[in-house]
Amino acid sequence: MSRYLELAEILGSRIEQGLYAAGTRLPSVRTLSLEHGVSLTTVQQAYRWLETSSLVEARPRSGWYVPQSRRLPELPKMGKPSLRPMDISEWGQVQDLLELERDGQTIQLGRGMPDVESPSLKPLLAALAREGRHAGIASLHYNDMQGVPALREQLCRLAVDAGCRFTPDELIVTTGCQEALSCAIRALCAPGEIMAIASPSYHGMMQILKEAGVQVVEIPSDPILGISLEALELALERWPVKAIQVIPNANNPLGYTMPESRKLGLIRLAQRFDVPIIEDDIYGDLSYGWPRPRTLKALDEDGRVLLCSSFSKTLAPGLRVGWIAPGRYFDKVLRMKYTSSGPTAPLPQIAIAEFLRKGHYAPHLRRMRRQYQRHRDIMTDWVRRHFPEETRISQPQGGFTLWIELPETIDTHKLDPMLKEHGIVIAHGNIFSAAGKYRNCMRLSHAIALTPRIEWAIQCMGSALRELLAMEGFDKTSAKPAIRYA
Amino acid sequence: MSRYLELAEILGSRIEQGLYAAGTRLPSVRTLSLEHGVSLTTVQQAYRWLETSSLVEARPRSGWYVPQSRRLPELPKMGKPSLRPMDISEWGQVQDLLELERDGQTIQLGRGMPDVESPSLKPLLAALAREGRHAGIASLHYNDMQGVPALREQLCRLAVDAGCRFTPDELIVTTGCQEALSCAIRALCAPGEIMAIASPSYHGMMQILKEAGVQVVEIPSDPILGISLEALELALERWPVKAIQVIPNANNPLGYTMPESRKLGLIRLAQRFDVPIIEDDIYGDLSYGWPRPRTLKALDEDGRVLLCSSFSKTLAPGLRVGWIAPGRYFDKVLRMKYTSSGPTAPLPQIAIAEFLRKGHYAPHLRRMRRQYQRHRDIMTDWVRRHFPEETRISQPQGGFTLWIELPETIDTHKLDPMLKEHGIVIAHGNIFSAAGKYRNCMRLSHAIALTPRIEWAIQCMGSALRELLAMEGFDKTSAKPAIRYA
Repeated sequence: MSRYLELAEILGSRIEQGLYAAGTRLPSVRTLSLEHGVSLTTVQQAYRWLETSSLVEARPRSGWYVPQSRRLPELPKMGKPSLRPMDISEWGQVQDLLELERDGQTIQLGRGMPDVESPSLKPLLAALAREGRHAGIASLHYNDMQGVPALREQLCRLAVDAGCRFTPDELIVTTGCQEALSCAIRALCAPGEIMAIASPSYHGMMQILKEAGVQVVEIPSDPILGISLEALELALERWPVKAIQVIPNANNPLGYTMPESRKLGLIRLAQRFDVPIIEDDIYGDLSYGWPRPRTLKALDEDGRVLLCSSFSKTLAPGLRVGWIAPGRYFDKVLRMKYTSSGPTAPLPQIAIAEFLRKGHYAPHLRRMRRQYQRHRDIMTDWVRRHFPEETRISQPQGGFTLWIELPETIDTHKLDPMLKEHGIVIAHGNIFSAAGKYRNCMRLSHAIALTPRIEWAIQCMGSALRELLAMEGFDKTSAKPAIRYA
Repeated sequence: MSRYLELAEILGSRIEQGLYAAGTRLPSVRTLSLEHGVSLTTVQQAYRWLETSSLVEARPRSGWYVPQSRRLPELPKMGKPSLRPMDISEWGQVQDLLELERDGQTIQLGRGMPDVESPSLKPLLAALAREGRHAGIASLHYNDMQGVPALREQLCRLAVDAGCRFTPDELIVTTGCQEALSCAIRALCAPGEIMAIASPSYHGMMQILKEAGVQVVEIPSDPILGISLEALELALERWPVKAIQVIPNANNPLGYTMPESRKLGLIRLAQRFDVPIIEDDIYGDLSYGWPRPRTLKALDEDGRVLLCSSFSKTLAPGLRVGWIAPGRYFDKVLRMKYTSSGPTAPLPQIAIAEFLRKGHYAPHLRRMRRQYQRHRDIMTDWVRRHFPEETRISQPQGGFTLWIELPETIDTHKLDPMLKEHGIVIAHGNIFSAAGKYRNCMRLSHAIALTPRIEWAIQCMGSALRELLAMEGFDKTSAKPAIRYA
């Protein structure tokens, strides 16, 4: 990583953690240059990079400042999963989340669905129509088991931005990231075996583990630094862990991007215990900062990282085009892919390759990153304004979901009748935990246009939550005497 | 089943088994009417149905005859699998078969690839282009987990031809039949558990079993009647079999369609031992006779049949659209489908639904059935003419593959250098067996135009096989003295 990015990461973490209050002046360029032994230009570059993420602002002839507006809500606390291997909890609620998508009238804040109505996707629709017409027979054939070569070439180019050098031969195109994860998990773990996962974690991945009969040890995650390496080390010492699964960039649901030093620490740990890592980078290209953060795979020296990703968040999930770079597990993963659904459909692959080749991807990403970051700020503001004061909110570094933590006494499922009545869908926190923890948390999606109707939904939830808290206080005061006289 | 079809089936089996010699007169309409207690019209209908399959021919004012041309080669013998549970043999050769597809110059007789260049598919290409242009955003969204409703409605209509009455709610669209089979198998069998399969069996399905860690008991199959119910009963008595997997219609690779009575026997057996049946009907719509044969699912009374199919053989494999009617295992299979690759891509589903709704499917099928049946006869003729005399050939009732059985001393892999030199690809028999049996067999595909180049390929193989047989004779005679003097 370039020096200015390293510096920017350090400064960014300090600001995000509230070391410098809103409105205060940040250390001068000269001071930082001396402190970190880097050139003045490097410090300037670091500040300018932070400016694009709205973490600092320049005041002419005065220096760099933490923006006044930046009075951030508190971050979610680090979770306390049980650190014992366990089976995954129920799937019913995940199914509900999928079912509810069917109705166009709902206020959908639950699904990790990108904005597919962006005009920057028009060239993709055109490519789909054109290839449907012209590719003709090529789109009807079984294609190469590893995927359309033209797409794999484009994927290799993209990978360079994430610090990876691949050849097309090292990639396998999959039917979405779900299939990539599913193949990776089944390639590494037999039923009854144990996988370590960062907690909270993507519910879809957890359902794969459930169906594969794999047990999980949940490792707590810091909302800035990511998976706790200390807790992971303990788990690796204690249990025969067959693989580690993480989402290090623009994490779902916590929003963090692991600092480069932590990523390196994770790789070292995996090397020491000789365990493979399944890296889910599905939101990586939607990191708000640019250049985008590197993947763990970029730091991988011995092929132990299986990098999984897809175009489901950056372009559209309905295309069902993902990929995996399985490192040393290539053969096993290819077999899994073949037995899972055969080769992936060529038509969307051809259309995406065309979209990438013609240079439509970079401007589309720029647009979406800006939109999602703006929406994050608006949504954060709404939640702060309408939810109870004690609410903690994540500060995502990419993607389009916020993680909300309410006082521990709250169970978000108590909102269910109200949500149903108003047609509001959220992702309850407990589906992000193997053991059904995080019942006081929820994930809210902010991909699409944030209309007044959505603010109204946030307001409704806020009022209901305040009522719940008030009733609780009332219960406590009225309950005490009852116990006293019992 | 209507009475005339029952009668036609009985007569057809007798003719296929050589009970009536080529050119002989068949029993009169009146005789059969008395013998089977049916009306004269019913017998006439049965004969007319057999005429469409070229099994009988009418001679004006004389009656019905076995066609002169019908001097059939002998059928393959019933296999002798070991009837013990075992792990599946190697995948390397299956991968080779997939790899070799890449090269457009090869003479591809190995893959189960339909003719996708038929003009009757043009409306489908048009629908793909049109929907790519107009469906736009709908094609980018995650759709209903069970698949596009418009397609499921059309599938329910199609199912009526196979004797099934479904509602769209009972179906799950999958990413090809491979995913349907994979979900069904993993829903029913944990690793180490046992499944009974008809032998020989589709190599892709066997690879799924391998990756799922499932053991198989291979049940011998008759080239006319299908899976041996007697051997299956023995296996069910002896082993804790978790599921039975069969391809009862236009079987791959043997080509048989199980008579209705055998299908019923199979269902009764499954009921008695309370075992589910995974039915692969992927070639069912390509049965040469019309109306197409019913599925096992049509005879299923208690939801124990999981019917899997797809458009990969009838339309095109590159679309990756299959489906499953999982009966009483619906919930489990839906979970498997979700964790396997998420919902299936909507665009090809929308296009296929359109193709079906506009009535393009029936004429397309008629055309393809005729083509494949004609090609079967030509290919059979070529094999008879060029291969060693002792060669046995299947008499497929649908689909586009022939199963060839050579003298037992032959190992088709001995042809490999010759095949490689001439760029000919065949499917070796041993990949259709868990234990690598059928080394003296091969499967030849006859979907595409049977050019002189293909006849030349058959000729090359025939010469090589004759040489092998000759050398063998030589080896034997020269080897004997060597032993005598040892």
